[in-house]
Amino acid sequence: MKEELIVVKIGGNVIDDAAALDRFLSDFSQIKHKKILVHGGGKIATEIGAKLGLETVMVEGRRVTDKPTLDVVTMVYGGLINKNIVAKLQALNTNAIGLSGADGNSILCNKRPVKKVDYGFVGDVENVDETVLGHFIAGGFIPVMAPLSHDGKGNMLNINADTVATTLAKAMAKIYKVSLLYCFELQGVLSDFEDKNSVIAKMDFKHYQQLKNEGIISKGMIPKLDNSFDAIENGVEKVVICHSEDVLKVAQNSKAGTVLSK
Amino acid sequence: MKEELIVVKIGGNVIDDAAALDRFLSDFSQIKHKKILVHGGGKIATEIGAKLGLETVMVEGRRVTDKPTLDVVTMVYGGLINKNIVAKLQALNTNAIGLSGADGNSILCNKRPVKKVDYGFVGDVENVDETVLGHFIAGGFIPVMAPLSHDGKGNMLNINADTVATTLAKAMAKIYKVSLLYCFELQGVLSDFEDKNSVIAKMDFKHYQQLKNEGIISKGMIPKLDNSFDAIENGVEKVVICHSEDVLKVAQNSKAGTVLSK
Repeated sequence: MKEELIVVKIGGNVIDDAAALDRFLSDFSQIKHKKILVHGGGKIATEIGAKLGLETVMVEGRRVTDKPTLDVVTMVYGGLINKNIVAKLQALNTNAIGLSGADGNSILCNKRPVKKVDYGFVGDVENVDETVLGHFIAGGFIPVMAPLSHDGKGNMLNINADTVATTLAKAMAKIYKVSLLYCFELQGVLSDFEDKNSVIAKMDFKHYQQLKNEGIISKGMIPKLDNSFDAIENGVEKVVICHSEDVLKVAQNSKAGTVLSK
Repeated sequence: MKEELIVVKIGGNVIDDAAALDRFLSDFSQIKHKKILVHGGGKIATEIGAKLGLETVMVEGRRVTDKPTLDVVTMVYGGLINKNIVAKLQALNTNAIGLSGADGNSILCNKRPVKKVDYGFVGDVENVDETVLGHFIAGGFIPVMAPLSHDGKGNMLNINADTVATTLAKAMAKIYKVSLLYCFELQGVLSDFEDKNSVIAKMDFKHYQQLKNEGIISKGMIPKLDNSFDAIENGVEKVVICHSEDVLKVAQNSKAGTVLSK
């Protein structure tokens, strides 16, 4: 029987709030299972970019990663945020190692092809090598993944943290029984966006399609949910969308967030 | 019999010169032995710090790492430089993983105690765990170490890259037959600082003491040589001080640089 592995993703709202991050890391460190943490970027990269005189270039609502921006996200995501999370986890007796997809070639990407828009140094995942993180986890280490990877030609690339979490979870499912926890600033998927307590406790794919067709699922949630059901379709045992404050509860199978299943 | 491991240290002069770095990494990738790369910082951190409005604070000729400076070196050494070296090595089919001493708790440091001078967030090595890098190397990975570590209390610390190389080499000597290669901008230790061809081919400790007493060794070389002989005294098989362009030659036991021995 496969051993359990929990892949947890935290976004910018936790990264940007020192107290929330400390609380989250304390909870994460108490999860007894084998585990991986994937972190997003937060606002620090934009702030540092602005101080360095970079302008944020947006095309059709999406950020373009030109070379100076790539350098800033490589510094901030791969250095400042990643290493500080590692140091904090080490202080909590959690033997973290901070990595990007370039490290060990765990995630190989292609630079996104230029079609209508040139997004710059942004990666689309080509291959995830599950044996790389598998080796680290087997050694007792807890990988902490920054939303960065490489193109195999010597260039770093910026990748979406949700994509990192999903593709890693799918790949790790080859060797582990994987649960994927998307932590964010809400209690779960809401049936009424105005009512933060209207959390949908459980959702299968059919139910999701129905809610989507009825316009009940908010637009912003759709990519996350599409990713989640794709993960479930590809071997991930369970996906839970929950508040970052509930990570330990969810890891312990207590009721919290929205639990997705086939 | 212990397997061979080569620990190579490169300094800022290689980091700051894109062509020299590419050449070095190409040579490094061709070294057949198990290996570790330790890199220094270069001028980029100072340049980025200046753009961010930080002043470099020097006390008695040494840089003080206040909190904003620590953030900049964590970004630049641990993110920008480290991850770009990893991506470049990956493109050369070298399965690099970029790490700091915080990752895996491979190097635990103490924040330097304040005596006459407060150097800020600077680390003195307390413990190196050779099993951590040992696990990565056994898995076929090539660790690329940034000159950063942590204090075990949640803080990153700035550490001297020469110190990282020496302490790692000494610790790894418990499980490997270690050669330590200090690569820099000269052909080796010179007997006449004015004459770049006056390389001393071999030096043992007695010879070093003699040359030091005679004032032949330049002041700047003394800490590097003291570190080197300390490494040899503590289990490192061989230390070579050489030009970064000679790294492959030295790894292949061809004559280059200054070879230090007991």
